[in-house]
Amino acid sequence: MYSQKIRAALERQKIKVGDRVLAESAGRKHEGILMPSTDFSDPKNVIIKLDSGYNIGVSFEKIKKTGSGGAIAFKPVEMEKAGSGKPRVSILGCGGTIASRVEYTTGAVFPAFSPADLVASFPEIKEIASISGRKLFDLLSEDMSPAHWQMIAGEVAKEIRKKAKGVVLMHGTDTMHFTSAALSFMLKNLPVPVILVGAQRSSDRGSSDNAMNLISSVIAAADSDIAEVSLCMHAKMDDDYCFLHQGTKVRKMHTSRRDAFRSINALPFAKIWHAERKMEYIRKDYRKRGNPGFELDTKVNPDVCLIHSHPCIKPGFIRLLGKNYDGVVIAGTGLGHVPANPFNDKRSVSVVPEIADLVKSGIPVVMAPQTIYGRLNLSVYTAGRLLKEAGVIGDGCDWTPECAMVKLMHVLGHTKVMKKVEEMMLTNVAGEISERSLPETFLV
Amino acid sequence: MYSQKIRAALERQKIKVGDRVLAESAGRKHEGILMPSTDFSDPKNVIIKLDSGYNIGVSFEKIKKTGSGGAIAFKPVEMEKAGSGKPRVSILGCGGTIASRVEYTTGAVFPAFSPADLVASFPEIKEIASISGRKLFDLLSEDMSPAHWQMIAGEVAKEIRKKAKGVVLMHGTDTMHFTSAALSFMLKNLPVPVILVGAQRSSDRGSSDNAMNLISSVIAAADSDIAEVSLCMHAKMDDDYCFLHQGTKVRKMHTSRRDAFRSINALPFAKIWHAERKMEYIRKDYRKRGNPGFELDTKVNPDVCLIHSHPCIKPGFIRLLGKNYDGVVIAGTGLGHVPANPFNDKRSVSVVPEIADLVKSGIPVVMAPQTIYGRLNLSVYTAGRLLKEAGVIGDGCDWTPECAMVKLMHVLGHTKVMKKVEEMMLTNVAGEISERSLPETFLV
Repeated sequence: MYSQKIRAALERQKIKVGDRVLAESAGRKHEGILMPSTDFSDPKNVIIKLDSGYNIGVSFEKIKKTGSGGAIAFKPVEMEKAGSGKPRVSILGCGGTIASRVEYTTGAVFPAFSPADLVASFPEIKEIASISGRKLFDLLSEDMSPAHWQMIAGEVAKEIRKKAKGVVLMHGTDTMHFTSAALSFMLKNLPVPVILVGAQRSSDRGSSDNAMNLISSVIAAADSDIAEVSLCMHAKMDDDYCFLHQGTKVRKMHTSRRDAFRSINALPFAKIWHAERKMEYIRKDYRKRGNPGFELDTKVNPDVCLIHSHPCIKPGFIRLLGKNYDGVVIAGTGLGHVPANPFNDKRSVSVVPEIADLVKSGIPVVMAPQTIYGRLNLSVYTAGRLLKEAGVIGDGCDWTPECAMVKLMHVLGHTKVMKKVEEMMLTNVAGEISERSLPETFLV
Repeated sequence: MYSQKIRAALERQKIKVGDRVLAESAGRKHEGILMPSTDFSDPKNVIIKLDSGYNIGVSFEKIKKTGSGGAIAFKPVEMEKAGSGKPRVSILGCGGTIASRVEYTTGAVFPAFSPADLVASFPEIKEIASISGRKLFDLLSEDMSPAHWQMIAGEVAKEIRKKAKGVVLMHGTDTMHFTSAALSFMLKNLPVPVILVGAQRSSDRGSSDNAMNLISSVIAAADSDIAEVSLCMHAKMDDDYCFLHQGTKVRKMHTSRRDAFRSINALPFAKIWHAERKMEYIRKDYRKRGNPGFELDTKVNPDVCLIHSHPCIKPGFIRLLGKNYDGVVIAGTGLGHVPANPFNDKRSVSVVPEIADLVKSGIPVVMAPQTIYGRLNLSVYTAGRLLKEAGVIGDGCDWTPECAMVKLMHVLGHTKVMKKVEEMMLTNVAGEISERSLPETFLV
C-alpha cells in the first residue's frame, strides 16, 4: 500500500488507481496510468505505467489527474489497408498475458502491448491476412465481467458488419472459457470465425506461447470454414500445433501449462499447424462460413452464482443465496447430487428443502457436474430424484459448471418465467449440450 | 411424496424415513427400513427395505416403529477365523454403489449388501486373505459428513489395534476423495494399508466394476507395502488393472465412467492386476508397512466452506461467509485469482477488501486452483499479490480444492490462531502438497 502521505495526496485530488496521471519528480514529468502499489515496491514511490508499456516507480512532488480510470489507452490502429488481396482479419485486444510483459523491478506481469505491437513483432501474421487491430481495454481476465462480454460482443459485431473475414480476440486466460461461452450465446448465427486467443507465458519469457497461439488464431480466422466462437491454444507441451476448441466446451485445466485449455465432453474442432499454415478438421458438426442470419443479442443478467456441493454444505448457506441472486448454478457431486439425507441419518443434513424453496420463490436452480467430465443423470439415485422433484434443471446435460453459469445469465437476461427458463436452458443453442457422449473425449 | 394419509400416520407415530418399521398389509407383516417415496412409486404404498436388501412397496393398514433412523443394520460378521495363515484383512462397509442394487420397480439404486454378502459373491477374495467384515452404516456418499469421517477413522483404528494387516473401506464414489483426504489427516503414521474402494455401476449391471475393484483393494490391503490411505478404482475403461491412488491426490473426474478417479498432480502409487494377483509399484515415496507411531486424531471443525471464484462473484457474497463459517477455501481462477480490479475498471469490482476483512476478523482464507491441475503462484499477477498481502494462505501449493477444504477443517479442529493455522496448512502432512511438479501427472 502507498505511504500515508501519497494516499492523502491521491484522496485530496480524488485520484484512483487506474486513472491517468501526470506526476512530477525532480523537475521531470511522467504521464501514464497510476498502478497499484505492491509489497515489493517502495511505498514512497508512485508506480506509473507509461504509454510505452513500461512501469516506473517515481518519488513525486506533485500529481495531477489527466484522465479517468478504465480509460487505458484505446488507439485503433489500421495496420494495413484493405485491397492487399488477403482476407481481412480484425484483432481486438482485451488485455491478458498475451499482451503483457514482466515488470522486472517487481517480477509482476502487466498488460503492455496493443495488437499493433504484437503484429509488428510477428511479421508472419501479415503474410496470412490483412490485419486491422485495436485495443478494447487492458484487463487481466479475472476482472472480466458480463459488462465486458457485452462490450466485446458489440465490437465483434461491428467488425463483422465491416466485412471482416474473421475476428481474433486477445484475452487473458483465467476466465477465457467464461467469455468464449458468453460470446457463443451473444453472437448468434455467425458468418465468420470468432477466435479467442491467450498466452500462459508473457512475451519476455523464452517459453512464451504468444507467437504460436496468435499466428494459429489468425490462420483459423483467415482460412477456416468454422463460423463459430472458438478458442485457440497450444495442444501439447511442445510447439507442434494448436487446438481450436468449441467456445462452450472448453476449460482451463492447469494453472500454468501452455496446453492448459482442454475440450470437455467434446473433441476440438481442429488442429492448426502454425509453421505450415495448415488446418486439420477433427469434427464436421460446425456452422459453415458465410451462412446468413447473424444477430447480436447481448442481454444478460449478471445476478447468477455458481457454487459447488461438498460435505457439510449448510442449508443456511443455500438460503442466503436466495437473497442475493436471481439464479443459482450448483456443481453437484457425481451424477448431480447434493446432501439429501433420505434415510434421516443423524450425522447428516439435507439441503434439498432449501433448494426447493429457492425454486418455489422463482429462482431457477441449475445443476452441473463438479467432476467436470461426464453427463448428469438425476434419475439413478435418490438425491438426484429429489432434486428433480424440487424443480432443479439440467438432467441429462453435459455442460461444464462455468458454461452452465454463463448460459443461465444469458437466459435470465431474456425471461424470468420459470417454465421458459427451463425450456431455454435445456435447448442446445451453441453446442453446450452434446447429443452423444464420446469415450474419446475424456482427459484429452 | 407419500400420500396425505400415510404422512399423517407416520407423523402421529413420529416415524421418519430411515427408521426401522413393521408394516402390516392383508395379514402379512413386513419389517425393514422405511425408504423415501419417489416420483415413480405409488404414493399410497410405503416402501420398505427388507433385511434381504430388497425394497418392496406395501399398501399397509398398520405401521409401527421398531428402531431408530441412522441405525440401519449393523451386523458384525466374522467370515473366517484367524489362523488360516493368510493375512487378515478387515472390510468395513459405508454404503455406496458398491454395496447397492437397482430397485427394478423404480429404477433407483439403494444400498443393499453388507461386506459379508459381497465376499460370499466373490469367493476369490477368500483366497487372498482371511476376511472379517462389518457394515458401519449405509449411505450414498453425497450424505457423508465430517462426523462420518470421524466414526470411520475410529473404526479403522480399532481394526488396526486388532492387528488387521490391512483395512478396506467400501464407500460411495461421489465424495470418496473427500473421505480419503480426511482419513489421510486423521490416521497418522499408519502401520498398514487403508484402502477406499467403490463402484460406479451397481452389482446387477453387467458392466459392474464392483468385483474387480473390491478384489484389487483386498490384494493391496493384504500384499502391499504401502501403509497409506489410498483409493482403489479402475485405471482404464477395460478390466485390465486398477490404480491405487494417494488419498490426498485424487479426484472423481467423470460422472459415470468406471475409470472416473484420477490422480491429480501426482502419480498413482501402484497398478493392481486382479486376475494375476499382482502389483506394480509406480512410486517409491510412500510410508512402508510396519512402521511405528500410529495415532488417531479425529479433531475436525466442519464449519468450513469451499467456494469457486467466477466473473461477477459479489463482494456481499464473500461478506456473508464470515457470518456462517470459521474458515473459507476459495478455488480461484488461473494461478489463484479472484476479481481484484487493480485498475478500477468501471465494469468490474474487487472482492479483495472483503477477503482481507475475513482474515482480519480471524477467519482463515485458503486458496486452491479451480483448474484442478497445477500449482498456485500468488506472486506473478497483481490479483495474487493483493491476495497474499490480504493474508490468503496457499501460495505455491498444488492441492485440490477438495483436499484443501478437508485440510482446513482438520487444522481448525486443532487451532484457531491464524499464525498456527497458516503454519499447519503450509506443512505437508500426507502428500497433499507435492514437492515437485511432474509433467507426466497432467490428465492421466
